Amino acid sequence: MHAPGDVRVAERENPTIVEPTDAIIRVTAACVCGSDLWSYRGIDQASDSPMGHEYVGVVEEVGADVTTIKPGDFVVGSFMASDNTCEICQAGYQSRCVHVVSMGSIGTQAERARIPLADGTLVATPGQPDADLIPSLLAASDVLGTGWFAAIAADVGPGKTVAVVGDGAVGLLGVLSAKQLGADRIIIMSRHADRQALAREFGATDIVEERGDAGVAKVKELTGGLGAHSVIEAVGTQESMMQAIRSTRAGGHVGYVGVSHDVQLPGRELFFSGVHLHGGPAPVRQYLPQLIQLIWDRTIDPGKVFDLILPLDEAAEAYKAMDERRAIKVLLQP
Amino acid sequence: MHAPGDVRVAERENPTIVEPTDAIIRVTAACVCGSDLWSYRGIDQASDSPMGHEYVGVVEEVGADVTTIKPGDFVVGSFMASDNTCEICQAGYQSRCVHVVSMGSIGTQAERARIPLADGTLVATPGQPDADLIPSLLAASDVLGTGWFAAIAADVGPGKTVAVVGDGAVGLLGVLSAKQLGADRIIIMSRHADRQALAREFGATDIVEERGDAGVAKVKELTGGLGAHSVIEAVGTQESMMQAIRSTRAGGHVGYVGVSHDVQLPGRELFFSGVHLHGGPAPVRQYLPQLIQLIWDRTIDPGKVFDLILPLDEAAEAYKAMDERRAIKVLLQP
Repeated sequence: MHAPGDVRVAERENPTIVEPTDAIIRVTAACVCGSDLWSYRGIDQASDSPMGHEYVGVVEEVGADVTTIKPGDFVVGSFMASDNTCEICQAGYQSRCVHVVSMGSIGTQAERARIPLADGTLVATPGQPDADLIPSLLAASDVLGTGWFAAIAADVGPGKTVAVVGDGAVGLLGVLSAKQLGADRIIIMSRHADRQALAREFGATDIVEERGDAGVAKVKELTGGLGAHSVIEAVGTQESMMQAIRSTRAGGHVGYVGVSHDVQLPGRELFFSGVHLHGGPAPVRQYLPQLIQLIWDRTIDPGKVFDLILPLDEAAEAYKAMDERRAIKVLLQP
Repeated sequence: MHAPGDVRVAERENPTIVEPTDAIIRVTAACVCGSDLWSYRGIDQASDSPMGHEYVGVVEEVGADVTTIKPGDFVVGSFMASDNTCEICQAGYQSRCVHVVSMGSIGTQAERARIPLADGTLVATPGQPDADLIPSLLAASDVLGTGWFAAIAADVGPGKTVAVVGDGAVGLLGVLSAKQLGADRIIIMSRHADRQALAREFGATDIVEERGDAGVAKVKELTGGLGAHSVIEAVGTQESMMQAIRSTRAGGHVGYVGVSHDVQLPGRELFFSGVHLHGGPAPVRQYLPQLIQLIWDRTIDPGKVFDLILPLDEAAEAYKAMDERRAIKVLLQP
């Protein structure tokens, strides 16, 4: 990203092994994340920044200390590189590993990428995947893993009514995750027909088009006046956070994964809401083995969130299409 | 409370049965809560308000629909009256019952009190208690139940390091609760020698005198740089909330029970903290049977937080002593 709104595809040096724990992968597919739009829109800073943090690919080279993956493996990794051995990783919070490296700082919207802490970060698929599985495996790298974490953070399970605030790729995959985790009823808050249709396909049972307090009122109406047991927040604005908290019953759970922008939570309202609040950068690595298996077995098809596929050369158009909401999520082929 | 800083003991009509689900109790002991000080200090509004929401006493009369308690029973109730049958109560959040009545609006710093929803609210002790058990049973009505809930909300358990922000009665009983719930290590943040001593008696293993970021740094130093697994927040100010959140490791839990005053939680910091946040008015009713039994068996002695006992007539002095921190908590005898 040369500057906000100005995405350029440029030649860069091929990455090389820097640390003995690194791997180099040839990127099979990458994509544009909703969170990339914050800098595209100038809300976050960006100036000649490499972009992209989602990726699947084939290992080309590994450092001397890498033992669990080898050249030729097809791999999926999280948007946060982690050692997977520290106390925080072992507790399941790999995105906050004491040695964490943000893949966004490396940039995976590229032909090749250096993956730090390769043993901890990368998970090899059971074999070379069929081409039609690539989008779903790519989704596991962030948006599926993030939606899954949001559902876990929101304590989704059998007997629960779940509401989802946000109909981007993460929100939609929050619906898919809630369905997989056994939710009884899944309410998606969306006003876009194409996204509503995909949400229904993923398992949504109810659609609420209203936003803000009107949306909250609608969710309450659908839940006997109490609010949902579990609410997934996948936007990151003040309005979406308050909509999520207010849509949740006392004692219920909010799982929030939209990267917070200018959000201030009023302490007193939060206190009296009685909700559980948990979220942040999803520890995708924790869920990768399980998610890869579900994809490999064709139990889930999260790749459906990619409704536009472009060659990497057309990255600028990919950002534009997502910014203008012409596409839910764009897959980039190097 | 006639006005901030002006507590008067006045004659009021004897309460009578209003609803068939009511009971009237003769109050054996009541007390002043840290949260009562918000209005004493003029931060919350108060004008000729009845005060008090903690109580133990003997049932004098019950309404026609009351079936589980009878005149003569010695009872303990929560500071929130609840039906204990609605969906929210059944989920364990009685303080947010759909028919909830705040006992503070009734005022239990009195000789007698009307208890709404008596079947749902009151728990009878196994018999008439020995006099020395009264303070502990009274503590169960709020401060013990609140400290217990904070520890549960903070996911306290074996193998965990717990930090407690706030050395008032709730914080101290958060220490006692953490000990009962099996915590390995309990850090109390306190700079008062008498409270530190009681905290140690209740099970604290470490004391941190520093506050704010210096206090956070000390907790990190004691926990290998990571922060505590579980943090109990028992104050309710911006500083104490941020101290609690920052003292918690990624993936850890903050249980916050200090009534929030002018707190605004920065969304971005909360997001990247990766903590679980849960709190609010404690559903004390959920824990009463268990807590009463622990007291009855003399396993715990939470009544030690009462370091001053005064006749109800001297309520004004009770508020003054707590406001000036001359007393941790004052028991009032009608």
